[in-house]
Amino acid sequence: MEKLEALKRLFPGKVDLSESERLRHGKDEGYPEARPVLAVVYPEGVEDVQKALRWAREWGVAVIPFGAGTSLEGHLYPVREAISLDLSRMNRVLEVRPQDFSCVVEPGLTRKALNQALKGTGLFFPVDPGADASLGGMAATNASGTTTVRYGGMRQNVLALQVVLASGEVLELGRGVRKTSSGYDLKDLFIGSEGTLGVITRLTLRLHPLPEHVHTLRVFFPGVEEAAEASYRIMASGLPVARLELLDELAMRALNRYLKAGFPERPALFLEFHASTKEALEAERASALELVREAGALEVEAATTEEERRRQWEARHQAYWALVHLFPGHRFLITDTAVPLSRLPEMVRFAQGLLREMGLTGNILGHVGDGNFHTLIPVLLEDYPKAEAYAERLVEKALELGGTCTAEHGVGLRKRKFLPKEHGPALEWMRRLKALFDPEGLLNPGKVV
Amino acid sequence: MEKLEALKRLFPGKVDLSESERLRHGKDEGYPEARPVLAVVYPEGVEDVQKALRWAREWGVAVIPFGAGTSLEGHLYPVREAISLDLSRMNRVLEVRPQDFSCVVEPGLTRKALNQALKGTGLFFPVDPGADASLGGMAATNASGTTTVRYGGMRQNVLALQVVLASGEVLELGRGVRKTSSGYDLKDLFIGSEGTLGVITRLTLRLHPLPEHVHTLRVFFPGVEEAAEASYRIMASGLPVARLELLDELAMRALNRYLKAGFPERPALFLEFHASTKEALEAERASALELVREAGALEVEAATTEEERRRQWEARHQAYWALVHLFPGHRFLITDTAVPLSRLPEMVRFAQGLLREMGLTGNILGHVGDGNFHTLIPVLLEDYPKAEAYAERLVEKALELGGTCTAEHGVGLRKRKFLPKEHGPALEWMRRLKALFDPEGLLNPGKVV
Ligand SMILES: Cc1cc2nc3c(=O)[nH]c(=O)nc-3n(C[C@H](O)[C@H](O)[C@H](O)COP(=O)(O)OP(=O)(O)OC[C@H]3O[C@@H](n4cnc5c(N)ncnc54)[C@H](O)[C@@H]3O)c2cc1C
Ligand SMILES: Cc1cc2nc3c(=O)[nH]c(=O)nc-3n(C[C@H](O)[C@H](O)[C@H](O)COP(=O)(O)OP(=O)(O)OC[C@H]3O[C@@H](n4cnc5c(N)ncnc54)[C@H](O)[C@@H]3O)c2cc1C
Repeated sequence: MEKLEALKRLFPGKVDLSESERLRHGKDEGYPEARPVLAVVYPEGVEDVQKALRWAREWGVAVIPFGAGTSLEGHLYPVREAISLDLSRMNRVLEVRPQDFSCVVEPGLTRKALNQALKGTGLFFPVDPGADASLGGMAATNASGTTTVRYGGMRQNVLALQVVLASGEVLELGRGVRKTSSGYDLKDLFIGSEGTLGVITRLTLRLHPLPEHVHTLRVFFPGVEEAAEASYRIMASGLPVARLELLDELAMRALNRYLKAGFPERPALFLEFHASTKEALEAERASALELVREAGALEVEAATTEEERRRQWEARHQAYWALVHLFPGHRFLITDTAVPLSRLPEMVRFAQGLLREMGLTGNILGHVGDGNFHTLIPVLLEDYPKAEAYAERLVEKALELGGTCTAEHGVGLRKRKFLPKEHGPALEWMRRLKALFDPEGLLNPGKVV
Repeated sequence: MEKLEALKRLFPGKVDLSESERLRHGKDEGYPEARPVLAVVYPEGVEDVQKALRWAREWGVAVIPFGAGTSLEGHLYPVREAISLDLSRMNRVLEVRPQDFSCVVEPGLTRKALNQALKGTGLFFPVDPGADASLGGMAATNASGTTTVRYGGMRQNVLALQVVLASGEVLELGRGVRKTSSGYDLKDLFIGSEGTLGVITRLTLRLHPLPEHVHTLRVFFPGVEEAAEASYRIMASGLPVARLELLDELAMRALNRYLKAGFPERPALFLEFHASTKEALEAERASALELVREAGALEVEAATTEEERRRQWEARHQAYWALVHLFPGHRFLITDTAVPLSRLPEMVRFAQGLLREMGLTGNILGHVGDGNFHTLIPVLLEDYPKAEAYAERLVEKALELGGTCTAEHGVGLRKRKFLPKEHGPALEWMRRLKALFDPEGLLNPGKVV
């Protein structure tokens, strides 16, 4: 094809046309379908991104930015002829400014690689969406994770972005300061835009001092509801909890098998406290223990060493893979609702009841300190529609309770149908913004709006 | 005038045409000029706002939303024929959901009235821009204040907005949850848009548990630079400081006169710690004391009772009025730069040096935990251009250091000239957004972009 010849000429050594790579780039971790992209391009700098967009405009081919491919909602599925712009070669730490608690990075850098690079500075980047996602992808989905209850998600931790628009124009959005009221907030408009408004080519991130004292707990309950209730009480107490994660019985069982661990197989809260003094930590821990006991905790385990702590959170992050391991040959559907905090116990009850009612297996786990949990449902391909029906009813319930169809995974293809209900007439304005920034519809078409 | 007759017919009992009110609504607290608006309309609900906008479209007259009138940059000055839409009658608390740590309010409610209404719930709304501003105005300027270092500013504490566009269309932006990745972030686009994109008619706010234990300190230093250095060290320590304010010698002197207080007349840091346990508080206080002593603190005073605490922060909030009192017959210019944290001591030094160099009197104070401080300059009218020249050089220095021309007061009329330098080509896109949402340029024309 003429256009592919032109692409190869433009990007010597930076294009991959192999079937396997084209297919890998046309899928994500959660959407059941895949479709190969036309080609995969590996830009090595902002000029390459501009060049790829010029080519795309010329040939009328769509462009889908690709970070680490860990998204879940069909974000990367090409609805029409598209190339994948894989940013993994743009993965440098450009600058660390420990004195300003900030750093500047390229979008293909992963969060783990960043924290590795920060070793020795006494600082860390807190947002951790389980998977080792790229920072560009995390900004593009407004990712959050276990520490968001304390440190916020991407919007709170990205100070500034460099983006390339469909037109090839390069914009700098936001400033490397803790606060600003200067002009319209385009930075936050691009965060969560899932590659549909522009390509993120650089991020200025906010870093946090590593906590001097950390305490990590696992608390086990007779039922998921008691655990949800306990998490609510902890939030209401104002205790400065840094992580507050729910895992149900099935999740614990899966983890035990997968990691050959010996956790009690009961609904659990995994908690962490960060403090800058030992005494503060001790007092907060004691208050938390009192609260969870009142809420019906059966058993409490403390991770006392750094290594034990690491293992606890690694386990939490492996929960998905543990389930995958437990159900070979299955597809997995992951829901992502959030509701106002007080509705969390009700929502968890509903999610559990609905699994039973629909005869589905699934585990419930997530960032309950933010009112957000996931149901992970393993299904055989023929039962996938049933899992989708479950997900739909969960979203409807969440919206009814004033919640959102997606707390952190984003819209992609699959959540689009819920946006009219969640946003009403505002959706039409989102579409106008899309048309303004990308009039030819070249950037990740068919997604979000 | 025919259009005024039409306006009066549309809004019986809700229009004020008096010279004094028309003039009061054509000025703010900081801009040296004032000009009467054509009329003041007091909407009592969202339908009134829609009606006013319909009238405005029909007659081609601009509309300037008005909250409490405490803004500082010419936000309310009518650059062309305009009515003022004074939202003070829309001041109800519509709903408090203590269990969800949220509430729903009308835009004309002031922050003090809100916190009054929250008495007994154990919750509070943290953002406090000194003045008793309206919550709509605070959202419109992305206000922040003394507690932002811990609790964030308006973007972090407004969960959802209802806005009326120039077209009269009503949009609901955001959701009442702690996090969402659903669709483009229009909520944050409207926060900080200063009445140029739409009229905010309802806000869902995030509330926080009142801290169980509070400790408030005043620490005095030999010079402003030592104080700035100490504030930087406190931030770097990761101590969970809830307030961290710098006041220079002149500010302390002015406060002593105005409040008949007996503060030491030396550069000071006003600090506060919030904790959920007594032991945590005690430990954090001890660490902070050690840090400030190392940084050269001369004297430390603790506010031990609730009443003393209240008086300390009341004093902080009176600093502007104290200066006004000390310099009768003067105009006051207030700068509002922020820089990356490590540049704060340098920036303070520069601000001080420049005052001397230009032969100006001024005091330096502000939210140094966020890298943000203000120079308050009292000048006689004929010297106003000199104060403006100072402000301009300060902004240039801030931008040079990677900072912003306005951390919290917003752009209004006066900061517009700095936006090309701060935002580069992104400014043009801000203008396109303005044109999209308000194609006839009816909403607060001439401001921000
Ligand atoms: C086991 C598991 C657990 C997970 N847990 C969480 C969680 O706790 N919290 C959470 O938020 N998410 C979670 N996710 C989802 C996923 O990790 C996040 O959405 C992540 O932010 C995606 O990053 P990525 O680099 O993999 O992006 P990709 O999947 O490569 O891309 C995601 C979207 O962003 C766009 N994009 C990527 N890079 C750029 C760029 N540079 N510029 C513009 N657009 C770009 C893509 O076009 C696509 O639309 C989880 C996923 C898995 C598999
Ligand atoms: C002594 C003093 C100290 C201050 N300290 C701080 C501080 O620490 N931090 C800080 O952030 N600010 C501070 N300010 C500035 C000011 O208080 C804030 O900008 C405040 O947010 C303005 O709110 P307001 O209700 O007075 O708005 P107004 O002054 O009435 O309006 C401000 C802008 O918002 C628009 N607006 C108002 N209401 C609405 C609405 N409902 N919908 C759409 N647009 C609307 C107006 O058109 C205007 O452009 C201070 C001011 C003074 C006088």
